[in-house]
Amino acid sequence: MIINVDRDRMVATMKQQAAIGGTDGGGLHRLAFSDADRMARDWFAEMADDAGMVVRVDAFGNMFARREGAVADTEPVLLGSHLDSQPYGGIYDGALGVVGALEFVRELNDRSIETRRPVEVVNWTNEEGSRYPPAMQGSGVWAGAHPIDDEYNKTDNEGLRLEDELERIGYRGSTPATPPESYHAYLELHPEQGPYLEKTGAEVGIVTGIVGLRWAEITLQGQANHSGTTPMEFRKDALVVASDVIAAVRRLSGTLGPRTVATVGSLTVEPNSVNIVPETVKLTTDVRDIDSAVLSKAVERVEAEVIAAAKRESVACDIEQTMSSPAIEFPNRTVEAVENATNGLGYKGHRMISGGGHDATHVASVCDVGMIFAVSEDGKSHTEDEYTSWEDCHRATNVLANAALELAEPAVE
Amino acid sequence: MIINVDRDRMVATMKQQAAIGGTDGGGLHRLAFSDADRMARDWFAEMADDAGMVVRVDAFGNMFARREGAVADTEPVLLGSHLDSQPYGGIYDGALGVVGALEFVRELNDRSIETRRPVEVVNWTNEEGSRYPPAMQGSGVWAGAHPIDDEYNKTDNEGLRLEDELERIGYRGSTPATPPESYHAYLELHPEQGPYLEKTGAEVGIVTGIVGLRWAEITLQGQANHSGTTPMEFRKDALVVASDVIAAVRRLSGTLGPRTVATVGSLTVEPNSVNIVPETVKLTTDVRDIDSAVLSKAVERVEAEVIAAAKRESVACDIEQTMSSPAIEFPNRTVEAVENATNGLGYKGHRMISGGGHDATHVASVCDVGMIFAVSEDGKSHTEDEYTSWEDCHRATNVLANAALELAEPAVE
Repeated sequence: MIINVDRDRMVATMKQQAAIGGTDGGGLHRLAFSDADRMARDWFAEMADDAGMVVRVDAFGNMFARREGAVADTEPVLLGSHLDSQPYGGIYDGALGVVGALEFVRELNDRSIETRRPVEVVNWTNEEGSRYPPAMQGSGVWAGAHPIDDEYNKTDNEGLRLEDELERIGYRGSTPATPPESYHAYLELHPEQGPYLEKTGAEVGIVTGIVGLRWAEITLQGQANHSGTTPMEFRKDALVVASDVIAAVRRLSGTLGPRTVATVGSLTVEPNSVNIVPETVKLTTDVRDIDSAVLSKAVERVEAEVIAAAKRESVACDIEQTMSSPAIEFPNRTVEAVENATNGLGYKGHRMISGGGHDATHVASVCDVGMIFAVSEDGKSHTEDEYTSWEDCHRATNVLANAALELAEPAVE
Repeated sequence: MIINVDRDRMVATMKQQAAIGGTDGGGLHRLAFSDADRMARDWFAEMADDAGMVVRVDAFGNMFARREGAVADTEPVLLGSHLDSQPYGGIYDGALGVVGALEFVRELNDRSIETRRPVEVVNWTNEEGSRYPPAMQGSGVWAGAHPIDDEYNKTDNEGLRLEDELERIGYRGSTPATPPESYHAYLELHPEQGPYLEKTGAEVGIVTGIVGLRWAEITLQGQANHSGTTPMEFRKDALVVASDVIAAVRRLSGTLGPRTVATVGSLTVEPNSVNIVPETVKLTTDVRDIDSAVLSKAVERVEAEVIAAAKRESVACDIEQTMSSPAIEFPNRTVEAVENATNGLGYKGHRMISGGGHDATHVASVCDVGMIFAVSEDGKSHTEDEYTSWEDCHRATNVLANAALELAEPAVE
């Protein structure tokens, strides 16, 4: 059995959500815990109710809409993503995964298909982390990565407590923010947020894992001096050290393996004047790989370069690890469900790794997870210009639906 | 005849000037055209008057205190520097050159020494350029490098016109801001503003020239992308290009010659976020050498590297030359006068190039110039921590005095 979701309804539903917190630039301003977030949640609850699902909200605001299965006491299949956005984000990021899951349930309803297992559609709280870090907060609390009180007590730039804001919008729910039972699997559909599918001509991304990530902040402390009167050999130039570090970071993917991505995204110079030798440079490194051993080696190489370059230029250095996230390889079962669906639909799929974190990162500690990527034009993400064609939205939603159906097991073939 | 200026009086005079606009941190806040500048000028006029000199002020506020020579119609010897300071500068920069020249005249008076040529002590207006760029403004106007009306019409951060401020402090003088006659020579005593003398154990710097300088601002335009989801081969990383440029700039002194100094002092990144590939980087280059041919070759190499590195990373680049100043080699006559004085006094002198610009840069287009450098502890300059020991101030002042005496020619041996 192959199902094909109603394209027109899917497009209409995407447009409905895009109108909530929509910006003049065609994007979304729907920060977690805002009034726009409340409206998107109300809308989701109404859509779920219309589709015959029962909605529960947990103590961190994560929303679960449940369609019962035909067989009692079977582990449910969980599907979804998030409805919050970046301050000026696009209309697909997060929403596509929630709408796609909703369309799957609607399609089951329309065709009167029962599944042996329950199906739950989830809207995770605050995936973006723009107002209250970290990103993937709601799924993180749910999966036990963050103690809920720590997150409740966070304040935004205006000093507003997260828990108060959650209560204010009426979504501090009554059930515990923990998995109420075992889950059979979790599938998340998401725009790729990168250019790989488009550049390679693939139609759907079959995600096999999420890269591990290490962030560091490096401080280089040299000495400010006149750029004209200080001979080169007497300098302690922090920016020269930084340039060696940037070059070493750039070189990782060419020396350790093709899947390593490594970036110096932020760099500031003090005093930052044309005729003063740079005294202090702070820069960040972001290294990602699906292979934990390669990731560790990459981080070691960067640290070795920082120390060696700093020594060459008589500059002091300090390296602080600011974030670490383990690599996650998805199990065959979920990857194959996605691949079977892609092949069954006749789409050109491509097995690939997710370079960014997603709610699936945390859910992976609760049950088997899988992900489907939709094409992102030019890889643009976290911008109002984010774009996935309706055709690509439809294809990826169909893959989600058929993979979900396989995992939820049709009660009657 | 060797003269030795009165050390106690020199120290007392340095302390007098340091009290005008002195900061709690032991430095100076004596911006050009400020009330503190007016007080320093009034003080200088009084000191010059006390020493029997006649003061004239030109239309740009440059102050010339003249001691007549024994022989009519001889070209005067000009000595001096500037009394304005950086916002939080030290007490030696500029002031030492004016006080040193004043002490020379006082010593001539005390010992009733007549010189064949007139001696003029000059206080140049706004050498620092902190409030109204450019640096070396008064000497530049005087020497014809800048049309006076262009400079008059400049406004500071509060919108105040330079000419109005000059009138306000009462120093828009009556004589034209041009050389009224030919000059025999100009000598300027200045702290080194670099560590060379201290590091090499020399006591006095015998300056043989001022480096040429080229400044550029380079803009690198890449593309912002997610640091996790964008494969390395699809990136347009402006900061990677910048790192290659910094390395190339660092390498100039090791490939073109030991006297080239080259600096990337300022660099800014947009959007400057740990997990976004840098889109736009602006950086400055500052290249200096005493040899114009080497300087040109250095600039060519930097430009070639910008273009090559930008091409490698698919980043657009733009190079704007923002400042250019020719190298100046001092004539033997003035250099030898300084060297003779140093040797005659038994000091350990060192022939060296000035890596920074000075009023002498502009005066060099009017007459032969020479410079004397005093030791700068740790090379610190443009900071309240600037320090030259009184012993070093005294030595350098003695060199100025004896070189000036040789050039002004004692009327009676």
